[in-house]
Amino acid sequence: VEVFELGEFGLIDRLKRHLGPAGPDVIVGIGDDTAVLRDTGDAYLLATCDTQIEGVHFVPESITPYQLGRRAAAVNISDIAAMGGAPTFLLISLCLPSRTPVDYVDALYSGLQEETQRAGAAIVGGNMARLSERVLIDVFLLGRTVKDRLLLRSGAKEGDLILVTGYLGNARAGLELVRRPEVVVEPAVRREVMDALLTPRPRLVEGQTLAATGRVSAAIDVSDGALSDLGHVCRASKVGARIWTDSIPVSESTRTVAALTGHDPLHFALQGGEDYELLVTVPEKHASQVMDAVIGATGLPLTVMGRIGPARDGVQVVGPWGKEDVVLPSGGWNHFAP
Amino acid sequence: VEVFELGEFGLIDRLKRHLGPAGPDVIVGIGDDTAVLRDTGDAYLLATCDTQIEGVHFVPESITPYQLGRRAAAVNISDIAAMGGAPTFLLISLCLPSRTPVDYVDALYSGLQEETQRAGAAIVGGNMARLSERVLIDVFLLGRTVKDRLLLRSGAKEGDLILVTGYLGNARAGLELVRRPEVVVEPAVRREVMDALLTPRPRLVEGQTLAATGRVSAAIDVSDGALSDLGHVCRASKVGARIWTDSIPVSESTRTVAALTGHDPLHFALQGGEDYELLVTVPEKHASQVMDAVIGATGLPLTVMGRIGPARDGVQVVGPWGKEDVVLPSGGWNHFAP
Repeated sequence: VEVFELGEFGLIDRLKRHLGPAGPDVIVGIGDDTAVLRDTGDAYLLATCDTQIEGVHFVPESITPYQLGRRAAAVNISDIAAMGGAPTFLLISLCLPSRTPVDYVDALYSGLQEETQRAGAAIVGGNMARLSERVLIDVFLLGRTVKDRLLLRSGAKEGDLILVTGYLGNARAGLELVRRPEVVVEPAVRREVMDALLTPRPRLVEGQTLAATGRVSAAIDVSDGALSDLGHVCRASKVGARIWTDSIPVSESTRTVAALTGHDPLHFALQGGEDYELLVTVPEKHASQVMDAVIGATGLPLTVMGRIGPARDGVQVVGPWGKEDVVLPSGGWNHFAP
Repeated sequence: VEVFELGEFGLIDRLKRHLGPAGPDVIVGIGDDTAVLRDTGDAYLLATCDTQIEGVHFVPESITPYQLGRRAAAVNISDIAAMGGAPTFLLISLCLPSRTPVDYVDALYSGLQEETQRAGAAIVGGNMARLSERVLIDVFLLGRTVKDRLLLRSGAKEGDLILVTGYLGNARAGLELVRRPEVVVEPAVRREVMDALLTPRPRLVEGQTLAATGRVSAAIDVSDGALSDLGHVCRASKVGARIWTDSIPVSESTRTVAALTGHDPLHFALQGGEDYELLVTVPEKHASQVMDAVIGATGLPLTVMGRIGPARDGVQVVGPWGKEDVVLPSGGWNHFAP
């Protein structure tokens, strides 16, 4: 058996067996994007890591080293945001070809530093090594949260509404423009979808605001794709979900790119991934309070896009007249697809 | 300018400029192997990361995946040991070709888990990604120490003795056997030097015991090579040092390998690196107390191998009749040598 046959999640499940039961200080361990660790007093320590690999997660022709630095920090900050936490300290493991220009590294660190500082955290260490073929950046990020404000994947209940910040699918529309350089769109459209792809804005204040309401039953950031990430919430919460196709927030820019490239914008929104929006579940009676809190604190709207149901439903996508026959390829992103 | 021209340390110095001054919560930041971060109460949080790259830090023909897992954890545990701390939580970023056998990953995790558990820590998370050409393992390790027991590089004083745990040069002798498979040695000799290279034992209890004496003025683990690591201590402490050639602890096994391969065993001991022994400085009047404490707690002897002097001396290697004319190539390990 080779690793791509299991995929990331299959492999993680298998490896968990080597580790035995987690000790009492591990609140959330292997299998989540962020580990939650008992700290002193009423605090939890959060720890997450994520890798950006040239040719896998980015192509150098379409991202500047400054943008890459911002992105490498942002995707980790997003994991802390999804827990309602505050990022504190960041370490960088940087693997580079020997002949990388120092200017490249300067610009990369300038982006890392800007995004880290914006999140109120600090770069405190790291490691450097030579890798001949590619640039690889591993970011390790620590964070903090108070115990009773921790957002987890595991608390969604039947009847809860499913809400998402901002738009879904912009990053996937940006990727389409990278793949098809011949496609011509208005500069404002290109900017919106390329910014979403290259320098996603982690929803940090949104996550903290959501946590502070005390009304959010489950939360995750949309990295693998909304359907796949909602699937993580459903498995952790032992529930199912229905997404309403006519309620999914898709930007005009993404609709434009989808139309010009012969795609269904719902595919971009539900399976694209890398949007780094927050997807949360909230009891219906608290939904407007939660939406008001986020728009009040940040100006960003949340959209209700579905409802949690029984586990036997799985994750369904339904149209205004019942079950939609959108053809959705099964499964999320396989990190080991050859 | 390309990164190999600056080397790791030159590059780190350059990148520090992007980061601005460290905040009050950063006790030790960029430039050390381990970050020291203010925690609640009288505790410090320690955070370190280190990468093992196939073809750079190991060759697959000479290390099993189980050994590689142990090594990847051990080199990080050693960084926490050098601070006198206790490892707590470990995250693993694993980058693999898609067609890696799952058995390989199983064995790797089994080694990671064994070494982590032995150190009293737990694997709590990580990340997986596809890297076509090589296996790459980034380990991120957290630890704890109490404030008044923290060991740093920066406290060495003129007149302090320089002590080291165990033997220096074994790992370099092991590397020589990997490079020259035609060299035949006794099985016990091969085992000693290969174990030192492949599955180094981090000096964790030794580090904690050294910290508990309250007599150690500076400490570092020997990863880049004893001379280079002593150089880090001297720069951080603004002192110089003299190493006495006739006092350097070199094993019979290393002497044998050096003799058979036409090397000076002192080169192996002083410039080989990867020994993961602890090098510490101690005021002379406390040296025997410190040595007794470590041998009492662990059975491992410390050897006095030199003395701290004024900064103007730099780091000198002197023989029994004064300055030795050992020809030592200048500089340590350049992580970006092409």
